[in-house]
Amino acid sequence: MLNYDVIIIGASAAGATAALTARKHYPQKSILLLRDAQNIPIPCGIPYIFGTVNDSMKNLIPVDNMMSANNVAVLVDKAMKINREFKIVMTKSNQSLHYEKLVIATGSQPIIPLISGIHLKNVFSIVKNTVYLNSIQEQLEKANDVAIMGCGFIGAEMAEECKKHNPNLNVSVVETQDHCLKLVYDNEFCDLAEKALTEQGINVILNTKVEAILGKEKVEAIRLSNNKELKADMVILGIGCKANTNLAIESGLSLGVSKGISVNRYMQTTDRNIFACGDCAEKVSFFDCKPSMLKLASIATMEARIAGANLFNTKRVNNGVVGCFSTVLNKKAFASAGLTEEQANSKGYQVVVGIAESVNRHPSMMPGGDLLKVKLVFEAGSEEILGGQAYGASSAGELINAISAFVSKKMTAEEIATFQAGTHPALTASPIAYQLVNAAENAVIKMLNR
Amino acid sequence: MLNYDVIIIGASAAGATAALTARKHYPQKSILLLRDAQNIPIPCGIPYIFGTVNDSMKNLIPVDNMMSANNVAVLVDKAMKINREFKIVMTKSNQSLHYEKLVIATGSQPIIPLISGIHLKNVFSIVKNTVYLNSIQEQLEKANDVAIMGCGFIGAEMAEECKKHNPNLNVSVVETQDHCLKLVYDNEFCDLAEKALTEQGINVILNTKVEAILGKEKVEAIRLSNNKELKADMVILGIGCKANTNLAIESGLSLGVSKGISVNRYMQTTDRNIFACGDCAEKVSFFDCKPSMLKLASIATMEARIAGANLFNTKRVNNGVVGCFSTVLNKKAFASAGLTEEQANSKGYQVVVGIAESVNRHPSMMPGGDLLKVKLVFEAGSEEILGGQAYGASSAGELINAISAFVSKKMTAEEIATFQAGTHPALTASPIAYQLVNAAENAVIKMLNR
Repeated sequence: MLNYDVIIIGASAAGATAALTARKHYPQKSILLLRDAQNIPIPCGIPYIFGTVNDSMKNLIPVDNMMSANNVAVLVDKAMKINREFKIVMTKSNQSLHYEKLVIATGSQPIIPLISGIHLKNVFSIVKNTVYLNSIQEQLEKANDVAIMGCGFIGAEMAEECKKHNPNLNVSVVETQDHCLKLVYDNEFCDLAEKALTEQGINVILNTKVEAILGKEKVEAIRLSNNKELKADMVILGIGCKANTNLAIESGLSLGVSKGISVNRYMQTTDRNIFACGDCAEKVSFFDCKPSMLKLASIATMEARIAGANLFNTKRVNNGVVGCFSTVLNKKAFASAGLTEEQANSKGYQVVVGIAESVNRHPSMMPGGDLLKVKLVFEAGSEEILGGQAYGASSAGELINAISAFVSKKMTAEEIATFQAGTHPALTASPIAYQLVNAAENAVIKMLNR
Repeated sequence: MLNYDVIIIGASAAGATAALTARKHYPQKSILLLRDAQNIPIPCGIPYIFGTVNDSMKNLIPVDNMMSANNVAVLVDKAMKINREFKIVMTKSNQSLHYEKLVIATGSQPIIPLISGIHLKNVFSIVKNTVYLNSIQEQLEKANDVAIMGCGFIGAEMAEECKKHNPNLNVSVVETQDHCLKLVYDNEFCDLAEKALTEQGINVILNTKVEAILGKEKVEAIRLSNNKELKADMVILGIGCKANTNLAIESGLSLGVSKGISVNRYMQTTDRNIFACGDCAEKVSFFDCKPSMLKLASIATMEARIAGANLFNTKRVNNGVVGCFSTVLNKKAFASAGLTEEQANSKGYQVVVGIAESVNRHPSMMPGGDLLKVKLVFEAGSEEILGGQAYGASSAGELINAISAFVSKKMTAEEIATFQAGTHPALTASPIAYQLVNAAENAVIKMLNR
């Protein structure tokens, strides 16, 4: 039997980060990373395989290199069962691996809706498996009409990449909500996202369910809740994902209300020697400790940095999910951190928003100038920031991280209105027009006049 | 005599922002902005007139539009004297303007070193005056050999823009320190800046003084402290600037030890009805309240937002200068916030640094991929962040604002190591490799092992 101080099950964002963090914090411990596939795709990079990177093998987390450079052993095998009494992981190839501390980072899998025709050929979900992803790419080569179910990040990005792959493809996205990306943006940003998609010739269908997938062996069409049929020789599902918890359940670990593996603030499961992190672990909101259904690689790595550091000494605490996202649609960045105005309202906050927009250069004719719009969401009484959204220039991808810092430190509108931002003609808006500060000032004035 | 509730003297970044802020906070008050020039250049944009924007009239703060849109009166005239007893500003054209509250935002002017030949023709400083800037541009058309004194931001940016204007120009920058941009970056970043300049064919001369400017009527050469002579038909000074305080002194206001107009935390001068902000006002460090010599448009606007809001009700406090900068040299961004490692050491802090670098895309072959390196500086005992520097991809221009937020909230390395950053394949590094978080983790481990 092989003995390790630490065994980590899963090698995607959470597992890899937990291993690297454990190595840094516990240089003397032996660490094994167990992964059930030879190749681990970069999860957020998957849509870009199809129109930009054009090869699933170019979108891999370099797990082996990272682990060997950090003295972490790697085994390609699947964990089948955990014997918690004897602290042993049993694998598919019948190995018994002894651990002192165990990290479960088994991730998530796509939700497959139980509708008629779901098992037809050429219905795909976004599975983190290169062989499977290659089969999507193959079908994309032959397809004429692609229907995408769900217009969250995966749906929107897949729609764009399908069009990039082949501009002649008919691409439709069908969303049950009244807006695309509704869970992350307020309506005015969703409008911009929908515009970005339709400008590329993508058919965006809102307020509509896919009732059935039609065809004999292969997909031929989908039937919508408005009774229309849409021709389709390929369907891609992007309606969310669910935690992989079988191993945890079979090992007697508890789940939380959100159906993720129950963890405490230190990322320990109900067995104190077993940690869980990433999509498989339950999450609570930073704002009100209520269950959060967010599953993001950036949350997974944050949790993995907590779990990995805490293995032999609980020193880091998880304060809950802020939620910080970004994407790019039709060359415009969309980014969000914390709560949207609508989410804040629905959680019962008294909300005041501040808005500012300006070109991200000064003077605006400097090369690379692009509009950058910022919206900040505040709680009216405490004046603390609850979230923010940004649209436009690609620098929004880092600007949103300044907003995430504001949120994590509960900065007030006043503090942000006098925040010292660096500005430069070739990189940002002018200091007079700087969006973060002016959006906060906009909210300050609204709060003064309430 | 004209009466205004508020008069603001100066219309550059500080004056304009003070006026806009006063208007928002005091909608009923009458406000006059007094400016002594028809055109107000964007201060940080001045270097880019010469190689990128190519017209000083395209680098103007749109003062009149901003003020008329916000019901602020504008008068082109020069304030000559303040009668504080009767609260009257006397102007060059002999107008008497009565105020309730006055804001002095008279800015700064270049330091002119008292060396031989300084008054020769074709010796220029960077004056915020379009007519003067046009004369620089005219001489640039004729020049063959340009010598720039000082390699701070202005010197470095001017050198690059002169080369962009005419790649055949011989451009030299002469710096007394052992590095370019030394006041803002640690040596390893300065090295990169010097490389960026020399790669463009700019002659970077360090550890060297300009002893004299040689020529009969016009500049013909400069003599260096190493006794070499350098041919030059044009000299540009970029060795810093000093506060414009004549008006304040003549009106009996006090100066601070840094020779700026003395102000309290509310930006009030020694006369409580007179505020000062921007380059003309004294500054103290956020870190230790010692005098700060930094003069930046972003600090000026921060102070102006405090002054403008406090005019009739002191509600905002200036916590001192963090200092957040950025520039671009040879297409690489250089950004800094707070203290450098060297500055922190010289202030007596026990310093631990954390470093991380990664491509700002994932996978790294995504379009637009560029290296982005981050260094964070922490105080070893409290583990609080003191500053950070970033180099490479243009997103550093906003990433540095996340660092500025970390600094302003005194976040610890632990907090930043578990910070929830948004990441996206087309915008940032991967969540595993995200630079801000990994640089903090790097410092955490060093502090553990101390």
